[in-house]
Amino acid sequence: MTGKLYVIGVGPGDPELLTLKALRILKEAKCICVPKGREEGSSLALSIVKKALSLGNKEIMEAHFPMKKTKNSNELPKGDKELDNKWAETVKNILSRLNKGIDVAFITIGDPAIYSTFFYLYDRLLELKPELNIEIIPGVSSINASAAKAKISLGLADEKIAILPANYIENLKATLEKFDTVVLMKVNKVFEGIMHTLTEMNLLNNAIYISRAGMEDGKVFKNINSVKEEDLNYFSMIIVKK
Amino acid sequence: MTGKLYVIGVGPGDPELLTLKALRILKEAKCICVPKGREEGSSLALSIVKKALSLGNKEIMEAHFPMKKTKNSNELPKGDKELDNKWAETVKNILSRLNKGIDVAFITIGDPAIYSTFFYLYDRLLELKPELNIEIIPGVSSINASAAKAKISLGLADEKIAILPANYIENLKATLEKFDTVVLMKVNKVFEGIMHTLTEMNLLNNAIYISRAGMEDGKVFKNINSVKEEDLNYFSMIIVKK
Repeated sequence: MTGKLYVIGVGPGDPELLTLKALRILKEAKCICVPKGREEGSSLALSIVKKALSLGNKEIMEAHFPMKKTKNSNELPKGDKELDNKWAETVKNILSRLNKGIDVAFITIGDPAIYSTFFYLYDRLLELKPELNIEIIPGVSSINASAAKAKISLGLADEKIAILPANYIENLKATLEKFDTVVLMKVNKVFEGIMHTLTEMNLLNNAIYISRAGMEDGKVFKNINSVKEEDLNYFSMIIVKK
Repeated sequence: MTGKLYVIGVGPGDPELLTLKALRILKEAKCICVPKGREEGSSLALSIVKKALSLGNKEIMEAHFPMKKTKNSNELPKGDKELDNKWAETVKNILSRLNKGIDVAFITIGDPAIYSTFFYLYDRLLELKPELNIEIIPGVSSINASAAKAKISLGLADEKIAILPANYIENLKATLEKFDTVVLMKVNKVFEGIMHTLTEMNLLNNAIYISRAGMEDGKVFKNINSVKEEDLNYFSMIIVKK
């Protein structure tokens, strides 16, 4: 009997935004796998789980996610020996538990389908273990949490929604023209450029800035002009509604 | 002391996909408000809640949502006397509980920000009670649940995601050209037209059909050509990944 791999979205920060299913599986799992990369989300996932349940004598396994992306590529670099070794190690660690019949719960902030690094790992896991027993548990994404905090709808009836990671906003103007709602993710590093486009398109009054939506110190700025440098952070987004 | 209005996303169908927060508030609330419209989602929300907790002697208040939309408008029709009266009644019912100090939990399937009819009500509530005490509890949306069930990511790194309600797909081709992932909601009534466009664009192999993602009888069709008429239903979507 091999173990089962659970990929669990633990929500945007508030431990109460875990689902009942996530909590049950986390309580049952003997091994919790925590992604550890350079991005700030990695450590947050474990801190959410720690607030929701006692980790007792579970094994906490760190999975190293070496993210060395180039700006124009959304593929992980292949052929880089050092990175390849790190990935291989993570895959090996997960498979060794599964092969011993131990269930592994891989945790990820928000929802697994929304920009979670897990999917970089998935192909590599399947390659070595095509019969992998895996279940993905969806979670509350930061996008939904941000809209809830701002008390706005992302879409009603026939409205169209676009979600753009803000480090790649060259077509921002065209998207703002065609969609009813545009969600810009991870805006902290490109905030000025976005403000420029919003000003140009006369959309400043349609934009809301939400910082750390699912967390205790989360903030909503209905007046985006009032956002100061210290308000910018990795867990932030802009929602533009026309 | 006036009561507080909670708007609660109860997730896509599986009662275990309720959040801990949703469950706590639903247990505490004396009055649960259930939207009742012509769309099939209305009755589902209550059935999810019933599986997760005992409703005991809570008041279940039905909110009538008269949806008489025109095809080209995403606004609710105003000026229609009969519809206006129905809306006014729902608003009055909610406010009367709040004014007596009773908390009201308004439930909605999936996540409140994703096409929930609640937002039609919100403006009307604020008009009569500008100081309304309201909290929106985000939930797992059917979009995230569908991706989880299909074991796919909606976006990685710099990928762009578009969400289109399928009854308004005139720009489908342009969107499929420009976005990495396109989520088509409520495809049952326009399935043939979508298949036509996918065939034309040679994207049939990139499309997955997911039916009733969050429910026990949920199904994933990785080969979209195998979808039969009886597989089409209101709780369905197509995810196209390029």
